[in-house]
Amino acid sequence: MNHSADSGGGAFRAIDVICKKRDGHELSRAEIEFLVRGYTHNQIPDYQVSAWLMAALLKGLSRAETAALTDAMLHSGEVLDLSEFPAPKIDKHSTGGVGDKTSLVLAPLVAAAGVYVPMISGRGLGHTGGTLDKLESIPGFDVKLPLARFREILRACGCAMIGQTREIAPADRLFYSLRDVTGTVESPFLICASIMSKKLAEGIDGLVLDVKTGSGAFMKTDEDAAFLAELMVETGQRMGKKVVALLTDMDQPLGLRVGNALEVEEAIEVLLGAGPDDLRELCVELAAWMIHLGGRASSVGEAKKVAVELIRSGQAFKKFRQLVELQGGDVSRIDDPTRLPQAKFSLDVESPANGYVASIQCEDVGTACVILGGGREKKEDTVDPAVGIILHKKAGDAVSAGDSLCTLKYNSEERAARAKALLEKSYRIAASAPVPRKLIRRILPRQG
Amino acid sequence: MNHSADSGGGAFRAIDVICKKRDGHELSRAEIEFLVRGYTHNQIPDYQVSAWLMAALLKGLSRAETAALTDAMLHSGEVLDLSEFPAPKIDKHSTGGVGDKTSLVLAPLVAAAGVYVPMISGRGLGHTGGTLDKLESIPGFDVKLPLARFREILRACGCAMIGQTREIAPADRLFYSLRDVTGTVESPFLICASIMSKKLAEGIDGLVLDVKTGSGAFMKTDEDAAFLAELMVETGQRMGKKVVALLTDMDQPLGLRVGNALEVEEAIEVLLGAGPDDLRELCVELAAWMIHLGGRASSVGEAKKVAVELIRSGQAFKKFRQLVELQGGDVSRIDDPTRLPQAKFSLDVESPANGYVASIQCEDVGTACVILGGGREKKEDTVDPAVGIILHKKAGDAVSAGDSLCTLKYNSEERAARAKALLEKSYRIAASAPVPRKLIRRILPRQG
Repeated sequence: MNHSADSGGGAFRAIDVICKKRDGHELSRAEIEFLVRGYTHNQIPDYQVSAWLMAALLKGLSRAETAALTDAMLHSGEVLDLSEFPAPKIDKHSTGGVGDKTSLVLAPLVAAAGVYVPMISGRGLGHTGGTLDKLESIPGFDVKLPLARFREILRACGCAMIGQTREIAPADRLFYSLRDVTGTVESPFLICASIMSKKLAEGIDGLVLDVKTGSGAFMKTDEDAAFLAELMVETGQRMGKKVVALLTDMDQPLGLRVGNALEVEEAIEVLLGAGPDDLRELCVELAAWMIHLGGRASSVGEAKKVAVELIRSGQAFKKFRQLVELQGGDVSRIDDPTRLPQAKFSLDVESPANGYVASIQCEDVGTACVILGGGREKKEDTVDPAVGIILHKKAGDAVSAGDSLCTLKYNSEERAARAKALLEKSYRIAASAPVPRKLIRRILPRQG
Repeated sequence: MNHSADSGGGAFRAIDVICKKRDGHELSRAEIEFLVRGYTHNQIPDYQVSAWLMAALLKGLSRAETAALTDAMLHSGEVLDLSEFPAPKIDKHSTGGVGDKTSLVLAPLVAAAGVYVPMISGRGLGHTGGTLDKLESIPGFDVKLPLARFREILRACGCAMIGQTREIAPADRLFYSLRDVTGTVESPFLICASIMSKKLAEGIDGLVLDVKTGSGAFMKTDEDAAFLAELMVETGQRMGKKVVALLTDMDQPLGLRVGNALEVEEAIEVLLGAGPDDLRELCVELAAWMIHLGGRASSVGEAKKVAVELIRSGQAFKKFRQLVELQGGDVSRIDDPTRLPQAKFSLDVESPANGYVASIQCEDVGTACVILGGGREKKEDTVDPAVGIILHKKAGDAVSAGDSLCTLKYNSEERAARAKALLEKSYRIAASAPVPRKLIRRILPRQG
């Protein structure tokens, strides 16, 4: 039965690597490199890699295998060398959520503290939003800069925010496309390698991971989120980086605004010292970890004070303004956020009863925003920057029948009707208030 | 993450069928049909089917899923309708072994008892021999007959022996080719569906399965063999067929001859009432089950008497002669087997010590035959009909140092040297005789 199925050349055969993983054995670094290189260079066919991916999903990967896969994907393309920069380079990555606009606050805030933030982000897909789509709601803001220009802006401003480029981790792009159509997205090991390979290609010294958990997160339980967080921390550490992961709540949207321009507006509020409590708290916490990892404060507590002061003094907002200007954005829209794209129509979702908001099905809120046109159902879809949802009530809030729970901002009646129907189902009203969920649920590795 | 990856059209999406199996859920008959039909009609790509196959291998299939897969592959092509034939049609299938020439005896022997035997067989691959290669060592014997001619010979002779045709179970051919290069051969569920879909396409009423176990078998343990046997029996029964499985020993070669023409010679010996005991015993046992399932004897015990008498009277051999003639073979070679292809050279492997043959690593004997040229390492290889191995000692036999354990029949010195080295290692000589292994180890379903 074991006849020749050699592909990929070299010392290994793809079939043997597949069978070894299928049988639950640990692959060597060389075997994993063979697989990644072979696939990237079109020497191993899709159908062998997809069989391997399914075996890897079902049998799992060891820590060493996960690090080797990350490393192989990382080195499939260009790895930025920012060693000439005169301060540490620290980035943040979030596993994706609804209303999560922290990146827009963090990049300028942490840069204002003297830490470089070279941020390469993604677009929204499914129910989750994407940083690039949010930035593009600022007219003129260019997220498609070449790496050389990215480097210039980073040097001038201390932060820069662009999208994935062809040069960075091309193997991850290929693997992700295949995983997407073969039911192999949902593996923490493969997710870890995908995220970490792209982030480590940024040439950073440290990384703060915001791993979301709850009804709006990819990982619905704290256990799954902690597993992924721990995996990413260890993988980063194995590769010589400082990595911290915060497990944070995504059981309801973060802040009060969901939608691209709406979220830019809310990020500006936070940069100016206002904005919703949960969003402000998370931004300060994440910024503090980045500043601390970047060596600009001796403790996270000290770093928080630094962050708060940079907001209070206006330096964080000034840095954001500089970033927008350098990346071609229209600064007048930042100075007057009412001049950001605005939807034509509004519509309220009203509470059907007296009581308390017991929960908000968070993924449904994200999906409602996608339905309005604020996100993508397919990669090819274009995004309407103006539409979205403004929440007036969140979990624990008291409500009376007829109160507005949230307001839809929309440009199409048909879409609004569908989104409203979904939002009506997503709010659960109960007679008593729910037990509050902690926003920052766990920090890894355990500090102490 | 769940964006569109629709392929295959219709009511299902391949991605959903993959994820359902990946998550350990049972697929419906319609979902399995969708997958098989979609792949056969080029609507579902290789990489999705291979991911599904790996999930099916690792998560297993239920009995209902296995039957549905068998049925979908069976109906991907032509299903012979032999209902007009005036007696039951019974076939035998072996999971493959070394020195297993029972088919050559069974087809004429059972046909002589008045049961039709429409036998569609395979070629040797890996260390196991194939019925077609053995038949082709009879000059002129044509195994590539069209189905219409197959049917004519079956009607005239009561048996016919050909190879897989394009019309029979095309889906199995596609699935098998993909399994072969994606590490998904070794699943009892997929093996069952592959075997049973091809066999049931022969239009048979009943099937006797010879499931081999031991060092020369695909399934090395009785447990694995029994699992596969039980699966095939239940699948056949679900499809309305009479199915019996015999677990038989393949811990050493069956009979004394391994190699194509050598095995034809030994089959003729058995048809003439002679031949080695183990081979004769297994042929009579399998024939008896076929005759019994075919309704030509009220019990297996009675059927054995029928088989023995058909051999004694010469009718079994006469039927074989008729079959060879109808399929274009040179009957004079059957009448005088010394005129079958003969290798040019002989070489003995001698016992290194006094004692007993404790065991013979059976797969190595098969591989030695392949090395001599008697089998295929790759599908494209041609086979030398003359070469092979004649065993003089089998497990339990007493030996003195210098006794010939076996004789190599070969045409290439270089190949003979390699085969000899392997055979020397395959015989284990010990001070005492081993506990004898039962030839017929178990019968399923349990009779009672």
